[in-house]
Amino acid sequence: MRSHSHFAPGHITGFFSPRIHETPEATGSVGAGVCIAHGVYTVVELLSDINTVTVYINGKKEDAPVSEEISKRFREKLKGVGVAVHHDLEIPVGAGFGASGAAALSLSLCFSEFLPLTRYQCAKIAHEVEVETKTGLGDVVSQLRGGIEIRVSEGLYGIVDNILLDKKLKVLSFSMGEIKTDNILKDDKKMEEIKKEGEKCLRDLLAQPTPENMITLSKRFSERIGIHDEDIKEVVKALDGVSLSSMVMLGKSVFSFIREDDMQEALSIIESFSGAIFISDIQEGGAW
Amino acid sequence: MRSHSHFAPGHITGFFSPRIHETPEATGSVGAGVCIAHGVYTVVELLSDINTVTVYINGKKEDAPVSEEISKRFREKLKGVGVAVHHDLEIPVGAGFGASGAAALSLSLCFSEFLPLTRYQCAKIAHEVEVETKTGLGDVVSQLRGGIEIRVSEGLYGIVDNILLDKKLKVLSFSMGEIKTDNILKDDKKMEEIKKEGEKCLRDLLAQPTPENMITLSKRFSERIGIHDEDIKEVVKALDGVSLSSMVMLGKSVFSFIREDDMQEALSIIESFSGAIFISDIQEGGAW
Repeated sequence: MRSHSHFAPGHITGFFSPRIHETPEATGSVGAGVCIAHGVYTVVELLSDINTVTVYINGKKEDAPVSEEISKRFREKLKGVGVAVHHDLEIPVGAGFGASGAAALSLSLCFSEFLPLTRYQCAKIAHEVEVETKTGLGDVVSQLRGGIEIRVSEGLYGIVDNILLDKKLKVLSFSMGEIKTDNILKDDKKMEEIKKEGEKCLRDLLAQPTPENMITLSKRFSERIGIHDEDIKEVVKALDGVSLSSMVMLGKSVFSFIREDDMQEALSIIESFSGAIFISDIQEGGAW
Repeated sequence: MRSHSHFAPGHITGFFSPRIHETPEATGSVGAGVCIAHGVYTVVELLSDINTVTVYINGKKEDAPVSEEISKRFREKLKGVGVAVHHDLEIPVGAGFGASGAAALSLSLCFSEFLPLTRYQCAKIAHEVEVETKTGLGDVVSQLRGGIEIRVSEGLYGIVDNILLDKKLKVLSFSMGEIKTDNILKDDKKMEEIKKEGEKCLRDLLAQPTPENMITLSKRFSERIGIHDEDIKEVVKALDGVSLSSMVMLGKSVFSFIREDDMQEALSIIESFSGAIFISDIQEGGAW
């Protein structure tokens, strides 16, 4: 038995503030980000002749602890079957595009075809495993919703609001590789600072919920918390005349909202740097 | 200044349980229903030379207290302008298709083009005015979400879950006119019964969240609370062999989920009754 393909969009975080609670369900983050039309497609195959979980990423067998754990939890209700998971990724891993959350959520949605499950019952497993394995706090709930999102409250059932768009904007993102953020996220004093800055940005965005203000506040956030990478700073500065941009949290990447008319100019600037360019529509509907 | 067109889907309620709280924001209902691709399109015009609100429904000037009140609340922030509201309705009024909620929500979304407002900030006014004028409890939040929805908790920020669909289902609905439900909704003992039955249906649907079970529980609900109209009973019975159906809460209408293959047979049965037939896709994305 094979599920239909399920999809979850990539998710870029502009700013965030972690909120940790006793349960993974309640734990999450507030903040703002955007879902892009590029993401992860997943198909699940149930196999009666084996009893293991195998994960293929873009056709290649890989170790994938999050996908394996998610499959294990659903398999407890599907006794006596093995699971083959096929992830097809359109977004890079480790660059801040929420690939882990997108894989987790699209995978969870696949199991609704074998078990009677609601959208939230599927998302619950994806969110909880992401939180437990420390691969994400706010990606899954954002990817479930779509659009330019404002996470007003945290956790699986948190309020995820949207900035309304009266014009067609594209997301231009630019990835220059990985950064090490482990030492920042393990530093308690730094985390306190991040929490405070994130909360401030949230308040300011809700008072003026526009795409422009979302980028402006994201930029302020990354500068103030000092995660602003030097290479990224240069790209952001170079783009300044054409379009406001900010660093992707957390990846050595830049993102910006751009109107079709300004795309050529922005691209001509970015092409002088070395990295991978992504032009995406905003995914307004969320995962399916 | 004229807004772009905004849309909210029609919404059919299968079963419900009112939950009244101190504020309109917190008040609402739990239950289940479905959003259909037919709904209400609205455009708002700001006029600097007058200072009143005028509402046009399908091109004709009409009294529309909900739309007038909503416009009034947004106008408080848009000083010195008049408002012309143009609603274009694809669904009948008073038949249980949530036309009032769809008009309220699509109208509220239009104001996001003149004021920086999020999706929830717009929906808040629509939901509150609906609750205050007693025209709806759960329509607006359902129409904001879309799909076959399960309202797990009530109010503007309530949890609205979705039944996941692995096949393309259409909604066949059939309207035989209006029913008087005022006396039922004003009867405290009856309302207690409705509340209890609705809560039971909610629990049973969450345990087996499928379209078939949603209809089965809706049917049980309408029979047990005794709102089951005699004419409607006949239509439901006649459809039984082809497709489960139930009475629309609250209207003299029937709804059913039908696969494309079964549509002709269902139509041949329904055509022997006298009423208006609607064939709609499920609106999975909600209002925009």
